[in-house]
Amino acid sequence: MGSMATTTMTVHETTAVYRRPWQEIVAEKRRAQAEAIVAFEKSNGQAVVYHAIISISDEDDIAKVAASIARGDVSAEKILFDEAIARARQLDKHLAQHGTPVGPLHGIPMTLKDQFDVRGHDSTLGYVGRAGKPAAENAVLVTMLESLGAVIIAKTNLPQSIMWSETDNPLWGKTVHPQDARYTPGGSTGGEAALLSMKGCSMMGWGTDIGGSIRAPAHMMGLYGFKPSSARLPYTGVAVSTEGQEHVPSSVGPLARSLASIEYTMRLFGGQKPWSWDARCAPLPWRDDMYNGALGRPLTVGVLYDDEVVRPHPPLTRVLRETVARLRAAGHEVFAWDASLHADIVAVQDAFYSADGGEDIRRDVALAGEPMIPHVAKLVERGPAISVYDYWQLNRRKWALQQAYLAKWNTTLKSPATEKTADVLIMPPMPHTAVPHGSCRWVGYTKVWNMVDYPALVLPAGRVCKGDIEAEWAYAPRNEFDAWNAQLWTDNKEDMLGLGLPVGLQIIGRKLEEERVLAAGKIIDDLFQQDKKSES
Amino acid sequence: MGSMATTTMTVHETTAVYRRPWQEIVAEKRRAQAEAIVAFEKSNGQAVVYHAIISISDEDDIAKVAASIARGDVSAEKILFDEAIARARQLDKHLAQHGTPVGPLHGIPMTLKDQFDVRGHDSTLGYVGRAGKPAAENAVLVTMLESLGAVIIAKTNLPQSIMWSETDNPLWGKTVHPQDARYTPGGSTGGEAALLSMKGCSMMGWGTDIGGSIRAPAHMMGLYGFKPSSARLPYTGVAVSTEGQEHVPSSVGPLARSLASIEYTMRLFGGQKPWSWDARCAPLPWRDDMYNGALGRPLTVGVLYDDEVVRPHPPLTRVLRETVARLRAAGHEVFAWDASLHADIVAVQDAFYSADGGEDIRRDVALAGEPMIPHVAKLVERGPAISVYDYWQLNRRKWALQQAYLAKWNTTLKSPATEKTADVLIMPPMPHTAVPHGSCRWVGYTKVWNMVDYPALVLPAGRVCKGDIEAEWAYAPRNEFDAWNAQLWTDNKEDMLGLGLPVGLQIIGRKLEEERVLAAGKIIDDLFQQDKKSES
Repeated sequence: MGSMATTTMTVHETTAVYRRPWQEIVAEKRRAQAEAIVAFEKSNGQAVVYHAIISISDEDDIAKVAASIARGDVSAEKILFDEAIARARQLDKHLAQHGTPVGPLHGIPMTLKDQFDVRGHDSTLGYVGRAGKPAAENAVLVTMLESLGAVIIAKTNLPQSIMWSETDNPLWGKTVHPQDARYTPGGSTGGEAALLSMKGCSMMGWGTDIGGSIRAPAHMMGLYGFKPSSARLPYTGVAVSTEGQEHVPSSVGPLARSLASIEYTMRLFGGQKPWSWDARCAPLPWRDDMYNGALGRPLTVGVLYDDEVVRPHPPLTRVLRETVARLRAAGHEVFAWDASLHADIVAVQDAFYSADGGEDIRRDVALAGEPMIPHVAKLVERGPAISVYDYWQLNRRKWALQQAYLAKWNTTLKSPATEKTADVLIMPPMPHTAVPHGSCRWVGYTKVWNMVDYPALVLPAGRVCKGDIEAEWAYAPRNEFDAWNAQLWTDNKEDMLGLGLPVGLQIIGRKLEEERVLAAGKIIDDLFQQDKKSES
Repeated sequence: MGSMATTTMTVHETTAVYRRPWQEIVAEKRRAQAEAIVAFEKSNGQAVVYHAIISISDEDDIAKVAASIARGDVSAEKILFDEAIARARQLDKHLAQHGTPVGPLHGIPMTLKDQFDVRGHDSTLGYVGRAGKPAAENAVLVTMLESLGAVIIAKTNLPQSIMWSETDNPLWGKTVHPQDARYTPGGSTGGEAALLSMKGCSMMGWGTDIGGSIRAPAHMMGLYGFKPSSARLPYTGVAVSTEGQEHVPSSVGPLARSLASIEYTMRLFGGQKPWSWDARCAPLPWRDDMYNGALGRPLTVGVLYDDEVVRPHPPLTRVLRETVARLRAAGHEVFAWDASLHADIVAVQDAFYSADGGEDIRRDVALAGEPMIPHVAKLVERGPAISVYDYWQLNRRKWALQQAYLAKWNTTLKSPATEKTADVLIMPPMPHTAVPHGSCRWVGYTKVWNMVDYPALVLPAGRVCKGDIEAEWAYAPRNEFDAWNAQLWTDNKEDMLGLGLPVGLQIIGRKLEEERVLAAGKIIDDLFQQDKKSES
């Protein structure tokens, strides 16, 4: 890790004269990508591939597909390319020889945001300057996935620097919404969300989240996305912006088309003792008692409709109201949560992101001399670096806020009816659905849960409907962000309805209570599925 | 917490003209202390007090004394002063009225290093400038101890800034070794160690440890001292030097005259869910399976005799050899550990301590204009502050070293005979026993376990004996620290023998495996007790 810093320093100090034009590196990378795709198509035959993709994509539950592969119903080989094909052949051979799968993820195709180190491949973070510098070792998560039998089939796009909830960079370009190229699929795990939403053969995409980067794209693309507490899954070998800044921790987590797949995988990881692989993981196995305990009784749920900074668009509020009604009808208790502390948390968090005055990002951009995307250009101009002493004072404010939120949850904010504390909270993941490129500005609904390091799950909860665009919307905006968001609805609501854009729901639990959040997710998701069945 | 920073800033900016002489504040504090002691003696009568102290100090096991108080054999009231007396009266009254104790620590007298906030009292950290600024609230640990029934009877001395393994400051002066005033009892939790070693009425002293501050004084004074991983016990409400720097985490932990008392208390804390009181605690209850599992089978133990920087004095090495022989004779396996990574860890750690260029300490010292003790003067002169960006790179080196130590433990360094990984390691706590004031310079034996955040227990394992001072010692020193340490033995060994100074043993476990370390401690401690019995 030390050598990375040295390299950046050296390049930083050389003059532009010795540097290749960044456009040359981009052209080379894109050519290599195109060639890999052509080679793949030749070696497998497109028809076979699509057949396999279709036969798998009918089923989004990893456990069921793994069982099907283990029985020999589906061959792992047919669905993958390049090293993935070799890997799939090995797996098929193993199964034929031994009659048993390599592990509970045997043959399951998965994809990775272009941050996770895979031996021999770049981890670009959307920087041109990181292209052509393949990783020497696998990330711990990749090693663990492979030991369980999974097959990594591709890496996916992310924004330059990762620090944005859309997906654009000078290396690979912009990732667009599969339904409408004018729209973003969200970010920073946007490549994963676009891919998974297309029901391609990847059954799980792995992302990271330091402000909403798993949850925002999951919400926009109608997927399940889970950000655990940072100490739950291994981060070693995952390159990241502002690396070394761990005071606002980034989390590794999965996106999928099925909640069962996420629960199945989290359960498997718990059994693999991630803390024996990664020094930053807490020694917490999967806790069935917590999961089953939450499934087996009425939940106490806090609901937050509005963070008091940016008012969510009508579809978000309507879907949340419907969820509350469904929960109550099923015997669960729901009480009003409030947004106290949220604005303070966001302020401290923003100061952390830019505590180095943008130096980390500037150095990465300077490596190849590429241009900054507009969002990144704004980010690095936020202000000068602060001193280490002031940085420590900032961290003391963080501790105080974390402690205050714990008190809010455990002591201050109880159900007025039953005096019970909340099992989980529910709230919108964002103040809007998918939006046109360049429109994402407020991630206060997701980012607060990074600073307190609480687990948060996003699940698909509905779509924009006609009633939403007829709802009363005119009101006096509270601030610049709120005004921008209000206008966004007014300008785009017809398109949003036309596209039938997905609307997500966010479920939050106490720090390191991943099992309880997933159980609450199952309860709520089952209520949605029941409704769908009764509608059809 | 934010207001503290503001206050310091303001004072820093005023001129010396408006400031009271620091000597005046010192005189005032010491007068208040003397008056409290006189008032205490008047209100209780010295004879009664000493009677109670003696009757309790015969028994060092907290569980047994708590049982005795619960039965009514000892009155809590008689042993304490000031607010502690009022508290003890309440407890006695509760027991009389209800027939049951308030909790499992009902009436147990405890003391706190002068860092833990106690409502209405200062937390000075050994700074004159923090005198006369009483805490508004109790530290979480204090609240939890009181909820369990404990009685806080006093706060104890520590070095200015805490960052030293001796105990001296301009406010309270130097804490000396009870057997010889020329010697230090160690630090930074030196007041606790001196007090507990005198078999006063405190049954447990609470300290903090960011480099050995619990373990060094426990070792020097023949006590048990336990530094858990930082996320195990609550730190909220404990003021500390370089506050906000959490990359090398400081831990809260107990010192006591009995290992059973430490185990009893850790078990109780686990049952109280510290994570529901303190946002920084991990959700780990006390794990009886881990504790009993380690007690019930032969251990695999790594032994490190020498960290390759400073060679330990003969008594340390001899005691460690004897321990290895005892363990082997009892059927446990012991294999050679090595010091790879230790020097790198120490280098990174030192850079963290002074990353702010000493600003944190300078500001605290400037508050009252007191002089710096020589050790602190050297510490703040180590070098200029680094940038936040470089600080993040330093933290990346830390992650790499933590990850490397995990690999060393789990993969690289196994028993050559059985291929088993170590349950625990044993090694010296320091390269020397208690030493004359101003002689402590190398804490590499303890501090590495702070940066990797592993639990470490010190227990009394022997005393300097005649054979030690007759042992061969002449050798070519490896470096300045080693030369200094070699001379220290040559110059003081006769005195050390004359005083019969205690020699401790350090037991280290994997991160957050406190239960396994305490079980190994019990196994080893029981072996020592058997030897004592067979000797007598």
